[in-house]
Amino acid sequence: MTGERMAAEVAEQPEVLARLLASAGEIADVAEQVRRTRPRFVLIAARGTSDHAALYAKYLTEIRLGLPAGLASPSTLTVYGSRPDLTDVLFVAVSQSGGSPDLVDSTAAARELGALTVAVTNAADSPLAAASQLHVDVRAGAELAVAATKTYTAELLALYLLLSGADASGHAAALPEAAARTLALNAPDGPGGAAAVAATLRDVSRLVVTARGYSYPTAREAALKLMETSYLSAQAFSGADLLHGPLAMIDDTVPVVAVTSPGRGGQAMIPVMDRLRSVDARVIPVAADGAEHSGLSIAADGIAEELLPVLEILPLQQLAWHLAVARGEDPDRPRGLSKVTRTW
Amino acid sequence: MTGERMAAEVAEQPEVLARLLASAGEIADVAEQVRRTRPRFVLIAARGTSDHAALYAKYLTEIRLGLPAGLASPSTLTVYGSRPDLTDVLFVAVSQSGGSPDLVDSTAAARELGALTVAVTNAADSPLAAASQLHVDVRAGAELAVAATKTYTAELLALYLLLSGADASGHAAALPEAAARTLALNAPDGPGGAAAVAATLRDVSRLVVTARGYSYPTAREAALKLMETSYLSAQAFSGADLLHGPLAMIDDTVPVVAVTSPGRGGQAMIPVMDRLRSVDARVIPVAADGAEHSGLSIAADGIAEELLPVLEILPLQQLAWHLAVARGEDPDRPRGLSKVTRTW
Repeated sequence: MTGERMAAEVAEQPEVLARLLASAGEIADVAEQVRRTRPRFVLIAARGTSDHAALYAKYLTEIRLGLPAGLASPSTLTVYGSRPDLTDVLFVAVSQSGGSPDLVDSTAAARELGALTVAVTNAADSPLAAASQLHVDVRAGAELAVAATKTYTAELLALYLLLSGADASGHAAALPEAAARTLALNAPDGPGGAAAVAATLRDVSRLVVTARGYSYPTAREAALKLMETSYLSAQAFSGADLLHGPLAMIDDTVPVVAVTSPGRGGQAMIPVMDRLRSVDARVIPVAADGAEHSGLSIAADGIAEELLPVLEILPLQQLAWHLAVARGEDPDRPRGLSKVTRTW
Repeated sequence: MTGERMAAEVAEQPEVLARLLASAGEIADVAEQVRRTRPRFVLIAARGTSDHAALYAKYLTEIRLGLPAGLASPSTLTVYGSRPDLTDVLFVAVSQSGGSPDLVDSTAAARELGALTVAVTNAADSPLAAASQLHVDVRAGAELAVAATKTYTAELLALYLLLSGADASGHAAALPEAAARTLALNAPDGPGGAAAVAATLRDVSRLVVTARGYSYPTAREAALKLMETSYLSAQAFSGADLLHGPLAMIDDTVPVVAVTSPGRGGQAMIPVMDRLRSVDARVIPVAADGAEHSGLSIAADGIAEELLPVLEILPLQQLAWHLAVARGEDPDRPRGLSKVTRTW
């Protein structure tokens, strides 16, 4: 079947999240070891899909842990050989395979330079896990589809458990069930329906995804998923950045997927939505189930804002799958891509 | 005349750079005040075009100053009200107008939280300059075109003078002349010719720009300029990230502008260029004058790699202008944009 692997892995996510929550104690131990070293700054390194999980981790670190954070540019360590003093720095490397040479090298360099290194991977016996002092296993099971789905949500939840302080697992307990409800809401026979939205996008070649705050990584990841599977040119902008230039390229041939989940990020999107309306943009909202809209839905009830990104991406993965199939592509066979990308 | 303002400001850049170099002593004083506080971590905040200058500053900080750096997410301070401890942090805010409320607010918050704040603006009497302890004036003169050009290169040079250690102005002395030669190389009557490249792109709706290291901000800024003026969907990827997914969307309808300047960033692009060739991508190189290629050229002779971004963007600004005009658009009148974007 076309796209069978990706479909199966999308569907598997509630179970993957539940399995990861069952090992929350182990992650809490890692979090405790991190806390004991009292890091003052956090650097997070990743590529591709995992880079969007890294961006989520940056928001968590700044908001929940109250520590300044930055996304590492691996090339400054690996290509330029810079040797910054990383005393008091927590260096978190996120990678599904744990095999990308530039991440392994930059993690090894960060450790040498004084950082406490933590690898978050789906491969406990990977070179990246070996290069790091601490390791968090996201336990998503083998990912066979080229387009990463279940490892993304597992990375988000693992990073939440690692970086958001006490009783993280208690707050996340309702997540697997909310994920299952979200997938059902957007299933072809559900009230929303990613397939119905995909049908309206079949002939689109350009698309914008926008969001703010915790949801901004969702916009980035959704754009990547749509590019990988449907070959359309999908661009993600924070709602604030969209108004600084890219708004010019939006017309009725460029639909805008806008993530407006409940919470402060969604509220900060209100002026962005107003501007989009004023230029007659064609907007596809991703919003809480029950909000008055005709788009994609999440089962947000009772879930804290900082956990909503785990839900928001689900209908967008479903959309990417349905759109690829509607365009006659096989989401399991993206052109020119292989599962593990080796970059130096 | 169509696009007169943007054309004049593009042409003005050698003079703007020379004027800024003449005030290098003042920036060296600010750099000395920064050095005395011995910052341990650098956060850089900006939006739009200035965000690409901020990314350049991140590379400089890590490679030249040996300090870990991150791009600030203003929303964590302004939307979520996070209160990280910013002792020992240097917070650099970059903004042409110095007027964006979220930058002013996040800079004020950073100062309260213990950071040393430096504003880099083109407006010495702006709210952002007032909110910061230190100020660097990029002295680019009033920028009238909606698409920022001369303030971008002025910000790059100002950040270089601020963040790259001793004798920065000596290294940059040859830059104004190299900028003039670069503009001439790509002029309609020059050997390369942005107009000739623009003619081949007239019917393109999607385009990718890629680069690595110091040149990656160039790719980001070129994509924004092309979006703002020509309404095409231009996406920027670091060469490494391109291979992690977005490569799938590249076919013969999606040309790839690849910045391969001399130096380590350009060398790290070699495997990326090989992969692009293997999928028969249509590549437009931006490379040193005299390199065997049919694309855009920079006069790189005698200019250090870390200063090449100031030159690389010039032919790409020229390309954006020519492409807009070739498509019947006025680069001075982008749809839906105004000069100062207010975001909160």
